[in-house]
Amino acid sequence: MGAFMNIKQYVAEKAKKAKAASRQLANISTEIKNSALLKMAAGLEKESATLIAENKKDLVAAEQKGLSKAMIDRLTLNPERVKAMADGLREVAALPDPVGEVLRMWRRPNGMEVGRMRVPIGLIGIIYESRPNVTADTAALCLKSGNGVILRGGSEAVHSNNAIVKVLSRAGAEAGIPEGAVSFIDNPDRACVMEMLKLNQYIDLIIPRGGEGLIRMVSENSTIPVIKHDKGVCHVYVDNKADLAMAEEICFNAKVQRPGTCNAMETMLVHQDVAKTFLPAIIGRMKKAGVEIRGCAKTKAVVPDIKDATEKDWDTEYNDLILNVRTIASMEEAMDHIAAHGSQHSEAIVTDDYGNARRFQREVDASAVFVNASTRLNDGFEFGLGAEIGISTTRIHARGPMGLEELTSTKFIVFGNGQIRK
Amino acid sequence: MGAFMNIKQYVAEKAKKAKAASRQLANISTEIKNSALLKMAAGLEKESATLIAENKKDLVAAEQKGLSKAMIDRLTLNPERVKAMADGLREVAALPDPVGEVLRMWRRPNGMEVGRMRVPIGLIGIIYESRPNVTADTAALCLKSGNGVILRGGSEAVHSNNAIVKVLSRAGAEAGIPEGAVSFIDNPDRACVMEMLKLNQYIDLIIPRGGEGLIRMVSENSTIPVIKHDKGVCHVYVDNKADLAMAEEICFNAKVQRPGTCNAMETMLVHQDVAKTFLPAIIGRMKKAGVEIRGCAKTKAVVPDIKDATEKDWDTEYNDLILNVRTIASMEEAMDHIAAHGSQHSEAIVTDDYGNARRFQREVDASAVFVNASTRLNDGFEFGLGAEIGISTTRIHARGPMGLEELTSTKFIVFGNGQIRK
Repeated sequence: MGAFMNIKQYVAEKAKKAKAASRQLANISTEIKNSALLKMAAGLEKESATLIAENKKDLVAAEQKGLSKAMIDRLTLNPERVKAMADGLREVAALPDPVGEVLRMWRRPNGMEVGRMRVPIGLIGIIYESRPNVTADTAALCLKSGNGVILRGGSEAVHSNNAIVKVLSRAGAEAGIPEGAVSFIDNPDRACVMEMLKLNQYIDLIIPRGGEGLIRMVSENSTIPVIKHDKGVCHVYVDNKADLAMAEEICFNAKVQRPGTCNAMETMLVHQDVAKTFLPAIIGRMKKAGVEIRGCAKTKAVVPDIKDATEKDWDTEYNDLILNVRTIASMEEAMDHIAAHGSQHSEAIVTDDYGNARRFQREVDASAVFVNASTRLNDGFEFGLGAEIGISTTRIHARGPMGLEELTSTKFIVFGNGQIRK
Repeated sequence: MGAFMNIKQYVAEKAKKAKAASRQLANISTEIKNSALLKMAAGLEKESATLIAENKKDLVAAEQKGLSKAMIDRLTLNPERVKAMADGLREVAALPDPVGEVLRMWRRPNGMEVGRMRVPIGLIGIIYESRPNVTADTAALCLKSGNGVILRGGSEAVHSNNAIVKVLSRAGAEAGIPEGAVSFIDNPDRACVMEMLKLNQYIDLIIPRGGEGLIRMVSENSTIPVIKHDKGVCHVYVDNKADLAMAEEICFNAKVQRPGTCNAMETMLVHQDVAKTFLPAIIGRMKKAGVEIRGCAKTKAVVPDIKDATEKDWDTEYNDLILNVRTIASMEEAMDHIAAHGSQHSEAIVTDDYGNARRFQREVDASAVFVNASTRLNDGFEFGLGAEIGISTTRIHARGPMGLEELTSTKFIVFGNGQIRK
């Protein structure tokens, strides 16, 4: 109970301080924010050796705990990765400041002008796992958009994250950023996360970044609005009117270019009219690239030497070199399959038919719907948002890649000359 | 336990059906939606006598329960109010359909075009109290924006709401709206609300409309995103550079025109340089209109015959003819007072000074910030949004008046010709 009260107080005090700092930050000039970002970048490079030494402590603990090779790789800092973090901060400094943008103003019949101005959301809580670069990336995006941030990284990266936050805070203070605007929960106790999720008087938004378990825990326990960055079960539908050479390139890219990401293809849907022409070539190429293929009966009738797809497979995010293939009778069947098994993340059609392209684009429900392009392009940089804090799978506020603009709220601004309510 | 399981199943089945209907509704034409709204309006007028008879049952129960006169007034239906509900539906039919609007498209260096299209949010749960017209209003706004809706009205209005929903459903079915798209939890057990709040697999957004207790209960228990319509502690600051005649009209309007609303003024802040000129006239006029005045020491030094304002008063939403008055030394002090005691709802400055207007507008944090206009104008109709489902006090997704556009989500749409991720 004593320890619990300490955690409660510790988290609440951090959040209270961060909230006060976020109020000041909301009205700080772009010049000061950019100068802070550049000083932070320089600080990370200057302290590279210290960061790598602190990271070493996390790596030793990770090896003792027997974490997987992939986890340890994501956790590792080296001079190149520190440099990449610093460059990331410089890129954010170069982006336009979203705060203060007035999207549109209009005049009302009573003569007053009404508009909407972008303002910071306030204090954002980020809950994430392993990769220490997330600490610098998200801090930079929140700072640039005028938001305070309270970071809660994975316990396995606590030394690395602590060292990074120290550098960021020192550089921020030098540039005139209020103390506490970038704040970090350095107590690895999981109870801290539960406390954060209840502090709706201080924290305005929670963004969880991580595995399904983390995201479910956060959604179920938070009294603060949550924007989830959840899984992707993505499809490419190859229409009977597709340019099959293009379809092959898109499908291969969507599966193989980086299979561990949420916008990689998990299931390829192929119209039966082109199955015999299309399937042998693409499946052969996939197999050569090490992809395991799981097909429906119709697909196996064309390419026998593949595994059977089970009902569960259609709903699975493999994040790996495994692909489901289903041969279907019509675009309607493809859209029904996507509605039943997709996760509304990234969906694509390959077709040269105008009507099919238009209907698929309009009727399929996902954060991004592609005609004749790879699902892998569902990304803030690729869409031109400049940088992204992740890909939202929540339907409100921001859906799909979230850039700086998506980290803002708005306020109505009204200019009158004596208007009253009649 | 048996009854509990029944409620669990009952609510889950309603929500599941409504979700399925909302998926169909997302792609229904504007023509069908408008035709449904007009048929609903005609239906309400035709069934006016039935609605009033059903409402009578609620009124009898309300009197037996000893509800306040104000509550009973809000609950009452009469031919004029039924007509007003029907007219409300016709107004929504006349508004432009937000679904399918593409806000902007841009071309990326790789040649693909990227844009954002408005799509429905999905299934929206509305939890509200007493007034039966909310049933028709919110159903119409959700339908027009392509969303399914699951309504949970107050138990005191259950007969009225049930009768209204029956009319709406019948008219909707005639027009071709999928069954269940407008659905109503007619079991008055409060456990139904708790069940709704956990159905995040079906419901995409919860909008609570009602008192502080309801809103707190919903925010604390919902696993679904919530957009709150919370209280307003609103201020008008009369600057030393104000046009005092204009200031008097604005302050009087902000307090007296309809004191029970969330955008009415609760505290008037007056610069000390104009206190002697301004306070006696405005306080005299307020008193004549029946307003009780509670002032700080400086205010009492100018107008002695008023009550003392306590610390608690500065934080209170009276919703009544009571006004706090504080005389302050500078605009900074006014902004500090607003930051400390305001609820970020509606804030106004009256001034002829360009610099002060600009600074107040920029630095004050609220859903709407007014220069030389009454806080009472913070409203969807007044701002030109056409109709409103309420005034959001949540900082994400929609802040301030929420119209049809704020009831939509977006999806990225991408037109390519073979683009892949490099």
